[in-house]
Amino acid sequence: MSTNVANLLGGTAAVLTTASFFPQLLRIWRTRSAHAISTTTYTIFLIGVLLWIAYGLLIGGWPIVVANTITALEALAILGLKRRFSRGQRP
Amino acid sequence: MSTNVANLLGGTAAVLTTASFFPQLLRIWRTRSAHAISTTTYTIFLIGVLLWIAYGLLIGGWPIVVANTITALEALAILGLKRRFSRGQRP
Repeated sequence: MSTNVANLLGGTAAVLTTASFFPQLLRIWRTRSAHAISTTTYTIFLIGVLLWIAYGLLIGGWPIVVANTITALEALAILGLKRRFSRGQRP
Repeated sequence: MSTNVANLLGGTAAVLTTASFFPQLLRIWRTRSAHAISTTTYTIFLIGVLLWIAYGLLIGGWPIVVANTITALEALAILGLKRRFSRGQRP
């Protein structure tokens, strides 16, 4: 029972924290603005997420691998948009 | 050996993904700009992180609880700065 509740909480937590970066991506795309976005944040975050993937592969935790692969792609996309929309602007 | 490597990877991953939001906080504070920051992202992210804390408490995973408590405070601070620096600006 407690394990079921824990799995439900953990699963929902994983879905929410993974899904949460889509609105950020959309906002940068729509406003064509990424001035407030920290490149340092998303670079450190991306390295952390890649280590989470390695950790998931090592312990055979596939939900960790899947969730963090999606998050890594979102972080990469946010860094790409930041680069694209920062050209010609002051940093 | 493999468990040690996994713990090292997981621990480093936790430190990096937790630390990564500090530069974002600093950037908003210093530039007084949060236009590109998505409120939806940080709200969903905060709910997800709170669920991670509940999950960590249930399974007795204290590193999960500690890392996510710090992340929750960072997300709250980013939402607070977003609110503060968005006043009087168009959304």
